[in-house]
Amino acid sequence: MSSNSTAATAGPSFGDDQRITELRAITGEIDDLRAALRLLSWDQNTSMPEGAGEARGEQMATLQGLIHDRWTTQRLGELVNDLATPIQQAPFTDADRALLREVNRERVLATRLPRGLVEEMARVEASSFEAWRKARTNNDFASFAPWLARTITLQREVADRLGFKATRYDALLDLYEPGLTTARVDALFAPVREVSVRLRQRIEQSGHTIDASCLSGTFPADQQMRLSRDILTRIGYDFTRGGLSISPHPFTTEFGSPFDVRVTVHPHEDMVDDALMAALHEGGHALYEQGSAPILARTPVVGGVSMGVHESQSRLWENAIGRSGAFWRGNLDVVRAVFPEQFADVDVATFTNALNKVSPGLIRIAADEVTYNLHIIIRYEMEQAMVNTSVAVESLPRMWNERYQAYLGVTPPTDSDGILQDVHWTSGFGYFPTYTLGNLYAAQIYAAMRASISDFHERLAGGDCGVALDWLRERMYRWGKTYLPEELIERVTGQRPDPSYFVEYLTRKFEQIYDLPTEAASK
Amino acid sequence: MSSNSTAATAGPSFGDDQRITELRAITGEIDDLRAALRLLSWDQNTSMPEGAGEARGEQMATLQGLIHDRWTTQRLGELVNDLATPIQQAPFTDADRALLREVNRERVLATRLPRGLVEEMARVEASSFEAWRKARTNNDFASFAPWLARTITLQREVADRLGFKATRYDALLDLYEPGLTTARVDALFAPVREVSVRLRQRIEQSGHTIDASCLSGTFPADQQMRLSRDILTRIGYDFTRGGLSISPHPFTTEFGSPFDVRVTVHPHEDMVDDALMAALHEGGHALYEQGSAPILARTPVVGGVSMGVHESQSRLWENAIGRSGAFWRGNLDVVRAVFPEQFADVDVATFTNALNKVSPGLIRIAADEVTYNLHIIIRYEMEQAMVNTSVAVESLPRMWNERYQAYLGVTPPTDSDGILQDVHWTSGFGYFPTYTLGNLYAAQIYAAMRASISDFHERLAGGDCGVALDWLRERMYRWGKTYLPEELIERVTGQRPDPSYFVEYLTRKFEQIYDLPTEAASK
Repeated sequence: MSSNSTAATAGPSFGDDQRITELRAITGEIDDLRAALRLLSWDQNTSMPEGAGEARGEQMATLQGLIHDRWTTQRLGELVNDLATPIQQAPFTDADRALLREVNRERVLATRLPRGLVEEMARVEASSFEAWRKARTNNDFASFAPWLARTITLQREVADRLGFKATRYDALLDLYEPGLTTARVDALFAPVREVSVRLRQRIEQSGHTIDASCLSGTFPADQQMRLSRDILTRIGYDFTRGGLSISPHPFTTEFGSPFDVRVTVHPHEDMVDDALMAALHEGGHALYEQGSAPILARTPVVGGVSMGVHESQSRLWENAIGRSGAFWRGNLDVVRAVFPEQFADVDVATFTNALNKVSPGLIRIAADEVTYNLHIIIRYEMEQAMVNTSVAVESLPRMWNERYQAYLGVTPPTDSDGILQDVHWTSGFGYFPTYTLGNLYAAQIYAAMRASISDFHERLAGGDCGVALDWLRERMYRWGKTYLPEELIERVTGQRPDPSYFVEYLTRKFEQIYDLPTEAASK
Repeated sequence: MSSNSTAATAGPSFGDDQRITELRAITGEIDDLRAALRLLSWDQNTSMPEGAGEARGEQMATLQGLIHDRWTTQRLGELVNDLATPIQQAPFTDADRALLREVNRERVLATRLPRGLVEEMARVEASSFEAWRKARTNNDFASFAPWLARTITLQREVADRLGFKATRYDALLDLYEPGLTTARVDALFAPVREVSVRLRQRIEQSGHTIDASCLSGTFPADQQMRLSRDILTRIGYDFTRGGLSISPHPFTTEFGSPFDVRVTVHPHEDMVDDALMAALHEGGHALYEQGSAPILARTPVVGGVSMGVHESQSRLWENAIGRSGAFWRGNLDVVRAVFPEQFADVDVATFTNALNKVSPGLIRIAADEVTYNLHIIIRYEMEQAMVNTSVAVESLPRMWNERYQAYLGVTPPTDSDGILQDVHWTSGFGYFPTYTLGNLYAAQIYAAMRASISDFHERLAGGDCGVALDWLRERMYRWGKTYLPEELIERVTGQRPDPSYFVEYLTRKFEQIYDLPTEAASK
């Protein structure tokens, strides 16, 4: 595997060309402004009083404007042009090349999307969010439809300004996953759709059920926070460069990776798995950010390279590792220490199976591993229709419901449980596919990791999460954005992204859990 | 009183001269950066992980640098010069004049104190803080002395660069209290020192003691937070433009007054008055910031005009109002609602007297109203010696201890309880006097308020804190920095600052509480 040679090197480094040094100084200042902007936003979502909304909006607009202006300065343009040819050769390093690439990417975005358009998008998003919130409460898609139409128009304008080869939607995909195209997503997703629908049907037909009652009960919030903290500590999350707190929805944020990467969860007192698995999910995002080599700090090369690769790490830690029997053989003691009475008589198999119960439903965020990607594929198909074709907004709820019936075997009784369930379409399109990409990457990385560490299973079952974290840090995390997504996956796994790993992973895992007769996975 | 004519006006307003509009646009952007910088600092003190310290330092330095650069731009200089003469006349308003004055003040500071010096001061402060922390723990003044000497050198350089008429210390005083001089402080403080020493002796000689045991017991932190919240609500603090949280030391901060002004307290579970009185103290600071007219937002005219005037409002609400019998007649029900068992049998007089118990001691932050200013005056006298004379650093602990014996009748057993108790001298000099100035201003404002509202006492005792807040907002808070400190005090009270109000206030209050025979207050 190529990853072995990668592992032998010393990690990313910048060369000493004076122009690279100047680029790093300029982007360092921009990164400081970006960190301040993120903190203003985080505070807005966690602590800010309601009466400060307008003032905070002005503060954030000022910082956004300063950042925008800095990406478009003449000096930065000179440096980019001046380096364009020499950067391809020695003595420039991979990190130097990534730095130039990311600077250029930010410059193109800032140049092609003028401040006026970006501000208009922010205003429409704020109004659209309010309209969506009310429409979902009142099950009234018609009142949200005009805002969705406005977002479609703006997203088309964004695509036209950014440019694309095949379809407008490609330009939006590229925003979240550099280099990704619709054609590539289609090729990657087709086997996922097939295996998911098939597995869902096989499980239903098997008549096998799982008892997940051990996850319900009474679990006080403060004890759940202790459990989240303990499990994060187990997987190697560094609390001296992070923090755990409560927010309405779990998220990971950073104010200068790799030195300040914080996570949140939201305990529900009647179930233990929601906050626990959120801690593992956000923990995966956070381990990736904390793992960047410190030399990359305050440059655009630090942190996760794309949304899809980022999601691969949250899914890897939450699902591949965090819903495995080996992991809970090594870590169920953490759960038992916090909730001794509830889990005294629950064995590892019962607990692990409960975490993997398959229940096809209407709601994406409550979906199991088997059906999750079907929710994404429906949204992906509809986003293409909205951006690339002249589909009537009014017809979208029917399209949504028909696909849910076809892929998941359920039909939403209301639009609030259907097309109105996600916040994403108040801001734009192109983000959803990265969730499924993340699942594909995660399965491929997990396979490579197990293949290259002969005693992986035993060490994980012995409570040693470092066996995974060390491997990931060395081959992947410390490189930040040095390599683009598909190149990074190839360096880590020896192969370009290939959906067959996920098909194999999902099939074998749920055949075992649901005691299904074995089928060829790559049908 | 001149305050009556002030009260009749409509509050501050900016004129429509194009240059004023441009000044407001420029300072608006600076104020947004300043708010982001304050949030970075607040987060550093409340939530930031320890491993992020260096990265945060770079972020804050970047924002400080951008703000510094903005105050020194050529365009701002042109506007200041261009407006210098016309600003004195119509159609320019008082707020216009204040805007130009504050812009000019910031420009002078930014120009005379170069970035290199400001950065050096920040570095020395950080190291000095660490040295002080260890020295206090180990009772080892000698290890802190070199850092104190370094700070003295830097503060002298600051004074020399800023310029002064009489003494270097005047330049430092002016930083916190514009226009203040050593000569003026001497005149204001002399009667305070006299009355404080005299009252302390009279109380000791009276043999009268106060039973404050009702304030001790077991008071769970979450209930104390509820009490703090309830008492802040009573005095009119606006939670839709603020927030209450816990921090190691209580403070007030703002991220864009008057829209986002937050306070913190620190409950100690064995006493009820610490967090409660801190809530009133910080609440006073916050009411002042929240009271600025919204038109002043995002300009340097918003918020409290000086540290001394700011402290006058925390002291007014904490001491003059918050330790008065009338206030607790109207509000003891709030305490009883949270701690019904503990306060069922405690009457208003017992509670109020307990809050006013006089106990001369070594520690400034634990001092009562009678002795507090003596702690300040000792520091003020020593700061002058350090800045204006060539006093040897090694001799300072002896000077400290001698003055404590002379003014307070106590001698610190260790330097940790003596000269090492405060953090202030890790950063500079000139701040301490504003604490006592605040007490003087508060007494004078309180006297004017009571004189102008005939039923003040009855309304306050009836639970109506608005009687004070409305009066203060109209005459004082909404004007922000429109008027300089002494002018503002004259507009509010009809007189320039005069220490006789404080002498009268302190004498009458503690003669009553300690049942002392009446003496002429202005002896």
